[in-house]
Amino acid sequence: MKHTYREIFKWGDRRETELEKGILNLIKDKFDYSDAELSQKHLYGDKPVSLDKQGLLNTGALEKLRNIVGNENVYTDDFTRASHSFGKSYTDLLQLRLGSVPAPPDAVIYPRNLIEITEILEFCNNHKIAITPSGGKSTVTRGVETPEGGISLNLTWHLNKVLEVNEENSTATVQAGIFGPAFEEHLNAKGYSCGHFPQSFEHSTVGGWVAAKGAGQASTGFGKIENMVLSLKIVTPTGVITTPCYPASAQGWDLHQIFIGSEGTLGVIVEVTMKIRKYRPDNTRYASVIFKDFESAVGAMRCSMQSGIGTPHIFRISDPEETEISFKTKGFEGTIADKFLGALGYNQGRCLMLISAEGDKAYSKQLINSIKRICRKHGGFSLGAKPVLKWLEHRYSSAYLRDPLMDLGIMSDTLETAVMWDNLIPLWKKVRNFLKERPKTVVMVHISHVYENGANLYFTFLSPVNKGNEMNEYIAYHKGLVDTINSNGGSLSHHHGVGRALAPWMEEQLGKTGLDLMQAVKNHLDPRGIMNPGGTLGLKP
Amino acid sequence: MKHTYREIFKWGDRRETELEKGILNLIKDKFDYSDAELSQKHLYGDKPVSLDKQGLLNTGALEKLRNIVGNENVYTDDFTRASHSFGKSYTDLLQLRLGSVPAPPDAVIYPRNLIEITEILEFCNNHKIAITPSGGKSTVTRGVETPEGGISLNLTWHLNKVLEVNEENSTATVQAGIFGPAFEEHLNAKGYSCGHFPQSFEHSTVGGWVAAKGAGQASTGFGKIENMVLSLKIVTPTGVITTPCYPASAQGWDLHQIFIGSEGTLGVIVEVTMKIRKYRPDNTRYASVIFKDFESAVGAMRCSMQSGIGTPHIFRISDPEETEISFKTKGFEGTIADKFLGALGYNQGRCLMLISAEGDKAYSKQLINSIKRICRKHGGFSLGAKPVLKWLEHRYSSAYLRDPLMDLGIMSDTLETAVMWDNLIPLWKKVRNFLKERPKTVVMVHISHVYENGANLYFTFLSPVNKGNEMNEYIAYHKGLVDTINSNGGSLSHHHGVGRALAPWMEEQLGKTGLDLMQAVKNHLDPRGIMNPGGTLGLKP
Repeated sequence: MKHTYREIFKWGDRRETELEKGILNLIKDKFDYSDAELSQKHLYGDKPVSLDKQGLLNTGALEKLRNIVGNENVYTDDFTRASHSFGKSYTDLLQLRLGSVPAPPDAVIYPRNLIEITEILEFCNNHKIAITPSGGKSTVTRGVETPEGGISLNLTWHLNKVLEVNEENSTATVQAGIFGPAFEEHLNAKGYSCGHFPQSFEHSTVGGWVAAKGAGQASTGFGKIENMVLSLKIVTPTGVITTPCYPASAQGWDLHQIFIGSEGTLGVIVEVTMKIRKYRPDNTRYASVIFKDFESAVGAMRCSMQSGIGTPHIFRISDPEETEISFKTKGFEGTIADKFLGALGYNQGRCLMLISAEGDKAYSKQLINSIKRICRKHGGFSLGAKPVLKWLEHRYSSAYLRDPLMDLGIMSDTLETAVMWDNLIPLWKKVRNFLKERPKTVVMVHISHVYENGANLYFTFLSPVNKGNEMNEYIAYHKGLVDTINSNGGSLSHHHGVGRALAPWMEEQLGKTGLDLMQAVKNHLDPRGIMNPGGTLGLKP
Repeated sequence: MKHTYREIFKWGDRRETELEKGILNLIKDKFDYSDAELSQKHLYGDKPVSLDKQGLLNTGALEKLRNIVGNENVYTDDFTRASHSFGKSYTDLLQLRLGSVPAPPDAVIYPRNLIEITEILEFCNNHKIAITPSGGKSTVTRGVETPEGGISLNLTWHLNKVLEVNEENSTATVQAGIFGPAFEEHLNAKGYSCGHFPQSFEHSTVGGWVAAKGAGQASTGFGKIENMVLSLKIVTPTGVITTPCYPASAQGWDLHQIFIGSEGTLGVIVEVTMKIRKYRPDNTRYASVIFKDFESAVGAMRCSMQSGIGTPHIFRISDPEETEISFKTKGFEGTIADKFLGALGYNQGRCLMLISAEGDKAYSKQLINSIKRICRKHGGFSLGAKPVLKWLEHRYSSAYLRDPLMDLGIMSDTLETAVMWDNLIPLWKKVRNFLKERPKTVVMVHISHVYENGANLYFTFLSPVNKGNEMNEYIAYHKGLVDTINSNGGSLSHHHGVGRALAPWMEEQLGKTGLDLMQAVKNHLDPRGIMNPGGTLGLKP
């Protein structure tokens, strides 16, 4: 039986997920769906994969590549090529549901080691064959597409080992193609944790975390990936760079920082040395607090970050609509507890904050108490640990909701930005206003990565599509959304990266002189433009 | 009366400092100095400044520059030029004491604003005139010399304002030429602190901190300058770059990080937006702990950094020789307290640790107690707050000792490195062994900037010179020292920077491909090589 497009676009382990009753009710309620509509299968994508575009590599090139990595590590079949044509952005999923793969790679190659990667880059550089490094392909910003064809260089099969755990230095060195769970299990067995848990954790690789400059759900305490990486080994068309490994230094600017967020445009990240932390889940304290409005919750969060009380690890606020929908779908709405909260004045407009504090026992206890104290001063009411623990249970599974929602013809996407504190509430309002201009649109916003100087805003929106016009209406809506963020002081991304989806706004963000500097770095390391070409990061080609 | 070389090389406010009795006794004891030798004035440098080399800028060029910045901001007199020919490295001081200024700038210019700087760079780029940005000129790595002559562009007269303190964002935006005390006083008045206190604090500028990638004495808690800067404005020969200001982001690699540690080679840093912190000195807790040996002290320090108890702000260990000399010169040796410590086993080989914890009251209390607990487990004995407070009193004044020591013919220099934990003790031993090969040499080492993954090692060495051969013997000794660090896993610098003094080792540290990448960035932003030329950072020209 031939593989289908559905097997490609489905999230994670590709299981079929039933939407829970709470969510089905929400859809009925917000989008006026009938029961018949709730059983539709819109653009189900269950046709067998068949590519129009044949691979363009000639026999000589393929033979050369097979000589380098072995026959068994070179794939040119339609399904493998189609599987490496897209990431997991909304437009990627739409294309695959439509059975449209206009620009697959000509071949997918699984290199076994650094030497092979070097040889492949040399060969491809000589013959101007495009190379797109790939890992979990969970990008939601069109970071792993192959508009120029060429090779998708997949590191997950062979370059997926933990090379060293150095307990004295509190570091681990891993190959870039290792997935989150394999890395974390290896560390847990030794009493350590990587501290980096993006929602894609189960299906993304360390190399991808670095390439896209990601952040984990505990980033407020552990930092983003750029704060965790100490050293990198990168194969570029110009040569191999191994950045020196120091806790900090002052020997010129930090070269490894140039590759964090490089999204495959400069070379192939092959090894990463990063900080690890002691794994002591029993020490972690949790708290949840409800606030009367978003402004008070944000005030308490900002005050917590600027008070010198230490730094929590998970630190989140759901805005009123996200809080309302979460309470509705989780069955909290209308319970006695809910009525009690309502009587206390926590009803319309209320916002839920989730907190965890890790580390030493005395530290996490003192920290959680300090935050609760600050929250009380800002009108917060403690709800105990349960809401956080419940959220943690579903921390990775909510990504599975998008596929069944799209089956129902519901546009479902997320976009995120980083913003300084003084602009957070204004930007939140402006973006919500824009998104709400579309009728029948659910807009849920949360803050999930927090700093002394500002935080991120994470927007999730759901809205029934106009069938047949899905792609165009999304592109226009997405453009309006990014325009709104870009022109109102938000960054293009806090942790998703730029890819091709956000590339058109890069020059406005960095200025021409800034983007030219990035291009100069690109041109030096990749003079023939073979690395992840096609406008990634706003770079040429 | 004509100004002397001594006025140029003297540290800080140029006051004459008498060496305290404790130090004089040390010199007698360690170096066998007679009373006559203790009253010598070796290479006193009190001759009037007179340059052999005339300024090379022609009348037209000078007129153009005067038109840009005004007559009163262009200097071509010998004293001003000589004052901008050197920083404060040991060889700089020697040269000035010898009355040797082989490569002064042709003119010193004090620009009034960004537009003038842009015009100067444009003019100099067209005429290939070298520009060396200067601030406090406290570099100890030969970072502000002018081997190609040209212009020393001094930002301290006019570009020294605090432009904004944003309390909501907890940030300040300053012009790069502001000195530490002016910045800190401005912040203190509003209840904030900059958190960055290098030993040069009183006589260095924010722009210099950024250019040299410095660290303050509380960096363990507040981070190095690269962890504090959120955004920069830089004038380069290719254009002005203003990096976007976000708490964090994922829109390509962080461009501002390329300029932190650029040491004037890429452009002129004109504005800096950096984090600030609440100023609450009453909340700060102090502790000092004595250990039986360096290994136990380092073990306690490492454990503290890796235990998730929070992060202290000042965190230092003096190695046995530094502890011994500090106890000797401060009059502690031989006291009853000293005898008591001796009876407890803290004598030969003992090491002093100093700690401060800032921030919220509950936090600093919990943190200092946690560290003390860890120290006890590693055999540490608490000495209370007094030794830290005493050290804080002298935190900036010990820099004044070098001049009177050099007056006595004593070579006095420092060098520092960063190293991962597992290599700290071996590197400390190897470097000490090398330095001790020189007879009659006092070698004091401390750790003063600490991370989860490693720390710095700061070496101070004192040794009587062989008169008449000061320069050659220093250069050979310094080379041997850096070779030892470089070949044994230490960085060239943790916070002093590279300048021209450490440039020859850059290729070994970064590899050719790494250094070529730096050169490519340089070539793009400064294609004619006018910015701080002469091998700074190992770059050409």
